[in-house]
Amino acid sequence: MSTRRDFLHLTAAATAVGALAGPAAAQAPASGPGRPIPPTGGDMLRLVTFVPESGSPPRVGAVRADGRVVDLTAVAVPGFDPTRMVSLIEAGPKALDAVRRAAAAGDGPQVETVRLLAPIPAPTRNIYAVGWNYLEHFAEGQAVRGTNAEYPAHPVFFTKGVNTVNGPYDPIPYDPKVSTAIDWEVELAVVIGTGGRNIEEADALRSVFGYSVINDTTARDMQVKLHGGQWFKGKSLDGYGPIGPWIVPATDLDPSDLHLLTRVNGVVKQDASTRQMYFKVARLIAELSRGLTLVPGDIIATGTPPGVGNARKPPEYLKPGDVMETEIVGLGTLRNLIQAVPA
Amino acid sequence: MSTRRDFLHLTAAATAVGALAGPAAAQAPASGPGRPIPPTGGDMLRLVTFVPESGSPPRVGAVRADGRVVDLTAVAVPGFDPTRMVSLIEAGPKALDAVRRAAAAGDGPQVETVRLLAPIPAPTRNIYAVGWNYLEHFAEGQAVRGTNAEYPAHPVFFTKGVNTVNGPYDPIPYDPKVSTAIDWEVELAVVIGTGGRNIEEADALRSVFGYSVINDTTARDMQVKLHGGQWFKGKSLDGYGPIGPWIVPATDLDPSDLHLLTRVNGVVKQDASTRQMYFKVARLIAELSRGLTLVPGDIIATGTPPGVGNARKPPEYLKPGDVMETEIVGLGTLRNLIQAVPA
Repeated sequence: MSTRRDFLHLTAAATAVGALAGPAAAQAPASGPGRPIPPTGGDMLRLVTFVPESGSPPRVGAVRADGRVVDLTAVAVPGFDPTRMVSLIEAGPKALDAVRRAAAAGDGPQVETVRLLAPIPAPTRNIYAVGWNYLEHFAEGQAVRGTNAEYPAHPVFFTKGVNTVNGPYDPIPYDPKVSTAIDWEVELAVVIGTGGRNIEEADALRSVFGYSVINDTTARDMQVKLHGGQWFKGKSLDGYGPIGPWIVPATDLDPSDLHLLTRVNGVVKQDASTRQMYFKVARLIAELSRGLTLVPGDIIATGTPPGVGNARKPPEYLKPGDVMETEIVGLGTLRNLIQAVPA
Repeated sequence: MSTRRDFLHLTAAATAVGALAGPAAAQAPASGPGRPIPPTGGDMLRLVTFVPESGSPPRVGAVRADGRVVDLTAVAVPGFDPTRMVSLIEAGPKALDAVRRAAAAGDGPQVETVRLLAPIPAPTRNIYAVGWNYLEHFAEGQAVRGTNAEYPAHPVFFTKGVNTVNGPYDPIPYDPKVSTAIDWEVELAVVIGTGGRNIEEADALRSVFGYSVINDTTARDMQVKLHGGQWFKGKSLDGYGPIGPWIVPATDLDPSDLHLLTRVNGVVKQDASTRQMYFKVARLIAELSRGLTLVPGDIIATGTPPGVGNARKPPEYLKPGDVMETEIVGLGTLRNLIQAVPA
């Protein structure tokens, strides 16, 4: 588990940098995709979907600890189509071993010079998402709702539309005619590997391909008030699910105590650990897959910790020009500019 | 509008037949797909995805008023891939005209001799669904919930997983370890043609490709009690969304006053008209597309009328061996056997 130790060691440094970073450091360009942030966290496989230069087709790559992006197009293993991340997930452990060797032996441009897309740019079904999976977030919501409901005995599942999928450094549209209450939600994303139905909790972690970072960006007014209490619409505006910057295979990362952060213009808004998750990853998979077949490449957003804007006094929402950073320390950081859409 | 008049004329006959049909008439085979039901409703284009014989790949076809299925493989129009219904939807009105001519001129086997799949067997995102869109159904639910909530000012949107998509005559799995409260919900399904974001209500019907029949089959116990009030999971068990038997283009069908029925073992359980919909199709599309881009082939289940099992006294649920028939008169009928899964 030296990887794990390196990871903990490096997180302290990364956190310190993050804490010092003011609004200027967090600034993204005024439009278009922002520059990728080099990896921290040491030696682990980081799988990306990237565009080497403007106009070239997306392909699957690996970002090494030194920040180099290795194009995996030349990796020839049965079933792996280097334009489709999900084909690598479906191809199984041997394909992943081949990719790992190629990443170690290869070379390529620095990650800051390429464009990163969402690791799975076009999932074949909505993103599964979990509500109220951190008790402190449930409690802060209760205070806003003014209710005294019991905490649910099973995970609260909803979905985010495929249209929410957004790149790790791409702008998030802001249209005041649609919503003026855009809120942040850092979450650990689970990417399913082998899938199946009625997966037992004891076996569930074996069905995980890897982990990524997602921000379950939410139009709070639509979620809460407009649509009768069902969350889907307020969770599903175009681009309201930045994800990435890469997928780290489950073999390389322990999800049980990861440090999650949201910063807005450099100010920390959420700061928690995945150890605070009420329903752990294995339980979420077991519950979700009861009578429902999961498939390779399915994404589960596992819920957000406290500190969302809606629960602050007074409430805080994102506005055009804000830069939202979503980090899971050692795993990766998203940086998205909130950008007004043309009237 | 002669098509519309023929349709209304034939509707009465079809309803009479339906009302007379007892449990024996509604019987499906003990397992495997059931035999398709020939069309009623006169001369309209009915687009299917069908398997001519066991083992052959699915293809797009048209079922004529005489019950013949015309294979559309030979129709050569730009963009139309005859193995993918969505490609026909994307190809636009000229492709549809070509298909219409081919259907009129062609020939093929009787529909009862082929296997029909869902018209769009693998949507690229979840099915959009609307809750409480018939006031009487909202009211019957209020009585069960014991609440006195106001009717929402905007449509209640949720989604059904892609895994729910089921053929019009295929069995629906029943697993008592997952749910013992399976309920029926006949609904008009809207299939999006041109898509887009922020579609104005006045323009919205122009974005519709066509209509189909869906049963928003629901695990009522999971929907209501298990998952904190979010409906997704209870609406998303494998196979809990039979749809079809075909798509009728919007040019051929007026959705504003269609007769919807659910029969269980031949007994009518739901019996209503789409004119009772609170939010009409155009409004649903306008609201759903606010900040959310719809794409060709997207499916919207528009809500169910009263008569669901959960609101009956005592409550009624489906059990293994039951045959659920879901009809929109003149559009088409689904017939699905509730089938116990092997222990």
